[in-house]
Amino acid sequence: MPHPIELYVPAITPFAADLSVDHARLVAHGKALIAAGAHGLAPFGTTSEANSLSVAERMAALEALVEGGIAPGVLIPGTGCCAAPDSITLSAHATRLGCKGVLMLPPFYYKGVSDDGIFAAFAQVIEAVGSTRLGVYLYHIPQMSGVAIPLAVIERLLLAYPGTIRGLKDSSGKWEYSRDVIVNFPEIATYSASEAMIPDNARTGGAGCISASANVNPAGIRRLIDALGTEHEPAALEQVCALRSLFEALPLIPAIKAAVAARTGDPEYARLRPPFVPLPEEHRAEVARAVALAAG
Amino acid sequence: MPHPIELYVPAITPFAADLSVDHARLVAHGKALIAAGAHGLAPFGTTSEANSLSVAERMAALEALVEGGIAPGVLIPGTGCCAAPDSITLSAHATRLGCKGVLMLPPFYYKGVSDDGIFAAFAQVIEAVGSTRLGVYLYHIPQMSGVAIPLAVIERLLLAYPGTIRGLKDSSGKWEYSRDVIVNFPEIATYSASEAMIPDNARTGGAGCISASANVNPAGIRRLIDALGTEHEPAALEQVCALRSLFEALPLIPAIKAAVAARTGDPEYARLRPPFVPLPEEHRAEVARAVALAAG
Repeated sequence: MPHPIELYVPAITPFAADLSVDHARLVAHGKALIAAGAHGLAPFGTTSEANSLSVAERMAALEALVEGGIAPGVLIPGTGCCAAPDSITLSAHATRLGCKGVLMLPPFYYKGVSDDGIFAAFAQVIEAVGSTRLGVYLYHIPQMSGVAIPLAVIERLLLAYPGTIRGLKDSSGKWEYSRDVIVNFPEIATYSASEAMIPDNARTGGAGCISASANVNPAGIRRLIDALGTEHEPAALEQVCALRSLFEALPLIPAIKAAVAARTGDPEYARLRPPFVPLPEEHRAEVARAVALAAG
Repeated sequence: MPHPIELYVPAITPFAADLSVDHARLVAHGKALIAAGAHGLAPFGTTSEANSLSVAERMAALEALVEGGIAPGVLIPGTGCCAAPDSITLSAHATRLGCKGVLMLPPFYYKGVSDDGIFAAFAQVIEAVGSTRLGVYLYHIPQMSGVAIPLAVIERLLLAYPGTIRGLKDSSGKWEYSRDVIVNFPEIATYSASEAMIPDNARTGGAGCISASANVNPAGIRRLIDALGTEHEPAALEQVCALRSLFEALPLIPAIKAAVAARTGDPEYARLRPPFVPLPEEHRAEVARAVALAAG
């Protein structure tokens, strides 16, 4: 059975002036994304600056999303940390809340670790959570984490935990990796990290995308998904690619937050935690152009 | 005034069968290192698998060391995490306990961040701890963290927090970086990560070393420090280099833990948390040779 093609948004995390998580804006932004056509949210990933949040902050923010009225069944929060106890705490918490699944980085401080070690790290968390309701989406983003998820590890995890391993997000930017995962493991839902890959992802048997620029252009990406295989597909693809390409030369997370601030007219959304710094003034024009191109 | 030349040991973290931190063995190993001649410990760094521990586990283990009888004045625990709230919690805790200082990684998940961002990340932690007793030792290990500490950032930090920035550990393995830090910032205590560099480090104005292999050869490294400038220096240097070179082709942390287990006759010391896996059998002979070479 083919996967439905869906858009999950790696929602930005708004911060208040004291750099605490701004729950009200987080919920408002999340609801706006879903109202604009996103199928769900994949919050607390890379674009969300989740690795700049403590475990307690991440749990409180996830609870705020659910209490704010976003159904847990459309949430795939990031839960993979360096330390297994933290990944276990977050994954168990998200599972208890009824989330669709969790997006799990491998432990990412130590580099050059073996396939056996990466498998053992995921297995340790899955065993400790110990719930048939846990759904794990593997998070492959080697250019940031420094630790890839090899195909051989996916195969072993699927053999050991067939009901638990439900998908993978490929943020490598390399279509070849997405393709290899989809072709070898068609039973899991594979999301590419760029909306430009949605047609290839869908035709190969993938599940859609989880893309940073969906914070700015959710309606445009949803339109592309709905237009797949119709005469409207080329124009919809052109729109999402034109917008996305404007971000390519910019510091991505500061630019996405600046764009959300510009779209909403609310400069509070642009605030970042260190080590990020505000988007340099010279890039404001590109952000304004991206916002002007956004659909809906 | 020149810095005293000292050995701080990045002590391994022993784990029990359930992978909880084994406080009794942690304290016993720490005391043995100091009894063998180490000037102090720099626990909860890379060799300690600290990034595989939760914040609560790190605080409990540090308290165990102090309660176990190791003077906080000879402890420089690692406290730098991805998330500033965690780095603040750990740094404030170590400062309250009276530690000599804290060894601080920059936030290491996000890559390609600016000097402004790295400065802001350290500044945020220092300001939040807000104690004149806080002593920060910057931790430069770009091959693992993915985030270097540029000289320009050190300069800005020293201008902003002259009493707080007290040193740097250079784990890059590149003498040129140690040298540049020592020459440009002679007022801070710069430790190299290899005992092979102790003579160069000492003659340039550095403060000694914080080396993984000191878990196995503390007495040999201390003998080199005591022999600096005497006729015994070449033989002492040869001994530490011969032992250290045996670890160079091995997975370092599993090999160091296996060597501590072999030296003490206590296999419990060899246990690792994922993503590490036990040292392959084929390397046991090199570990045995290293142990046979260890001094004291």
